Amino acid sequence: MKPSNIRIDDKRYWDSLMQSAKIGPGSQGGMSRLALSDSDKEMRDLFVRWCKDAGCAVAIDRMGSIFARRKGSDDSLPPVLVGSHLDTQIHGGPFDGCAGVLAGLEVIRTLNDHGVQTLRPIEVVNWSNEEGARFTPAMMASAVFAGVTPLDWALARKDKDGIAFGDALKAIGYDGSTPMGGRKLDSYFELHIEQGPQLEEKGIPVGVVTGSFSIRGMNIRVGGENAHVGPTPMDRRRNALVGAAHLIVAVNEIGWGEHQARGKATSARIEVLPNLFGILPHHAQVTCDFRHPEVEGVERMVRALEARLPEIRHRSGCDVEIVERWQYGSEAFSRACIDLVRDTAKALGIPSMDILSEAGHDAFHITHVAPVAMIFTPCEKGISHNEKEWSKIEDLAPAANVLLHAVLARASR
Amino acid sequence: MKPSNIRIDDKRYWDSLMQSAKIGPGSQGGMSRLALSDSDKEMRDLFVRWCKDAGCAVAIDRMGSIFARRKGSDDSLPPVLVGSHLDTQIHGGPFDGCAGVLAGLEVIRTLNDHGVQTLRPIEVVNWSNEEGARFTPAMMASAVFAGVTPLDWALARKDKDGIAFGDALKAIGYDGSTPMGGRKLDSYFELHIEQGPQLEEKGIPVGVVTGSFSIRGMNIRVGGENAHVGPTPMDRRRNALVGAAHLIVAVNEIGWGEHQARGKATSARIEVLPNLFGILPHHAQVTCDFRHPEVEGVERMVRALEARLPEIRHRSGCDVEIVERWQYGSEAFSRACIDLVRDTAKALGIPSMDILSEAGHDAFHITHVAPVAMIFTPCEKGISHNEKEWSKIEDLAPAANVLLHAVLARASR
Repeated sequence: MKPSNIRIDDKRYWDSLMQSAKIGPGSQGGMSRLALSDSDKEMRDLFVRWCKDAGCAVAIDRMGSIFARRKGSDDSLPPVLVGSHLDTQIHGGPFDGCAGVLAGLEVIRTLNDHGVQTLRPIEVVNWSNEEGARFTPAMMASAVFAGVTPLDWALARKDKDGIAFGDALKAIGYDGSTPMGGRKLDSYFELHIEQGPQLEEKGIPVGVVTGSFSIRGMNIRVGGENAHVGPTPMDRRRNALVGAAHLIVAVNEIGWGEHQARGKATSARIEVLPNLFGILPHHAQVTCDFRHPEVEGVERMVRALEARLPEIRHRSGCDVEIVERWQYGSEAFSRACIDLVRDTAKALGIPSMDILSEAGHDAFHITHVAPVAMIFTPCEKGISHNEKEWSKIEDLAPAANVLLHAVLARASR
Repeated sequence: MKPSNIRIDDKRYWDSLMQSAKIGPGSQGGMSRLALSDSDKEMRDLFVRWCKDAGCAVAIDRMGSIFARRKGSDDSLPPVLVGSHLDTQIHGGPFDGCAGVLAGLEVIRTLNDHGVQTLRPIEVVNWSNEEGARFTPAMMASAVFAGVTPLDWALARKDKDGIAFGDALKAIGYDGSTPMGGRKLDSYFELHIEQGPQLEEKGIPVGVVTGSFSIRGMNIRVGGENAHVGPTPMDRRRNALVGAAHLIVAVNEIGWGEHQARGKATSARIEVLPNLFGILPHHAQVTCDFRHPEVEGVERMVRALEARLPEIRHRSGCDVEIVERWQYGSEAFSRACIDLVRDTAKALGIPSMDILSEAGHDAFHITHVAPVAMIFTPCEKGISHNEKEWSKIEDLAPAANVLLHAVLARASR
């Protein structure tokens, strides 16, 4: 068979996904495979076995990311890297991340089936802790790999029980010794479910990710004052929870204001002290997230919130201060890799559309050290970070074949 | 000296309060002596020693409440009970509760000094876990004493670390064997700081508590849906934290609507799941508290919130349901005991005013089993449930003398 005619094995890819889906089940039929948990270890062990069975050499780096390498005919050339993550949200689904890692493995298995020897090596990667559900921030291991975040800082991050990332890695036996990054990559490809409704609504199986929404995040601290909820008159109160509630309502309204332009604004996390029914809280902290297809749009949302802070201070009597800010989504994907994905879909006769990523992905960090592209697949009703997240093999296989041939093209030159 | 001329020893009362204030210090100069903690045990041990030194027999009941008894000349008569609580809020002060328990001890010490033998026995009580800051609900031990709450249910209540009240009692050695309540009391008197600003503002040292604000509480559950904070469009979201924020804002506005009538409405506690920055929460629960001098007023506030629930459901897309309700504050104090407190103040030449309690107190429960009155003292700026809570001995001594002579009058008949 001519290499251009080979296709992935749909059944094998699906079976691997369904085996993964059994490890770390959630409480409502989905997944809850938190980074560096026992179930994460179980899935890692299975993945490593699968990779070795496919003839790959496996290396673990100091952040616990797993690299499975299929040799090239010139093994000294920088490899094509392909992958995503095997950890899930606390209430997640079987495809967010896993679809990409196991598509990478399926690419290698398919090349093995057909005896295709590539010029460059191909590596499949499982990035540790993409979700950030146990250890913040999200996408931590790819950030360290790309030199965005210091290794020591990341290893010291603690979960809510005070366990350090480095200690949790040791506990599951994935504290590897491979140095972090520092080596040349030919390119990086990541297949991922869209996590939004566009592909499904338009009936298009492949999203050519041309870039990202602009994303701005911030933590806002609300300072109030402890007082008895009983006798303290309304006009003497500085209830930090009231300040936080005004903030959350404002963020949500700002999101609605940019809804037509596909902007979103979210507060999904709050921290309150002492958080008891009988005492007005002196402290609250709210995490806010703004996303917009245009940089000007996201900046408009941030300015809108900043403009409302004086009113929120006035209405709650509290101090309200932005104490931390972050941003991402302006990382540029590679024009050559994007075009390759689009052209590959066309050559395979698979409908595709250009699309922006609205979520964060490890791929964003890797743009700092390699040419990058992403391929999106449809998922049911765009539902993700929910135990109902679902895709069918018909949703996934077309993109996996585009991935196969894009990787093959890069690895052959 | 004629019994009517005796007075408490201001210095001794203050010194005892200041010794108590050193046990279980807070982080900002106040107190953090949570119920059944090591510091609570240390304070209990000191209190028991003081009571024994004052010639009292000490009994501990099954909820760990401490009763120190000074014999009457007819010791078979029902005793006059006087007391309050030695536990504090997580961010509390040295007077909330302690002022009442140590005033009771000072009454006994003063009667000893002057060799006054009363007809009836007098008992000083320290009720366990008045604050409810570690184990909910508040005022739990007095509720069991009065037969309002079952003993087994109370012993099984757990703190946030999963430790049961009964086990925590055992751990500090205060799991007593005295049966709960079931015996006749002549009357119950509780001295307490006002925890509001009225007495200080009017320059009046004694508040004759004639009753309580009407208090209604509820837990409201908000049901949303997990989704990714990135790609999920605004019109597909059911963010439980947004529903909760609308609720908290509404509760606060309803409180302001009754501010002129001295009504208050509070949300001081929220619970959110999973409470992570990257996933819309599916669950939130908000505790709401309404207080008003008039029953009709508090019911107006509750109805106002109920009327706003449909709009909150609509604006957040969430389910919003009241899942638990409670009420108190309609317990009637004893007309005879109230009059006795007012008349005693007058006889001593101490200015007093009638006042309603705006906070919950153990006294409310004891109304079910005995005639009850309370005496309020001024506290600085009305601040309480705050580490800045403060009173001076000049604020406390007048009320303690009223307590002395009211108790003496009841115990002599």
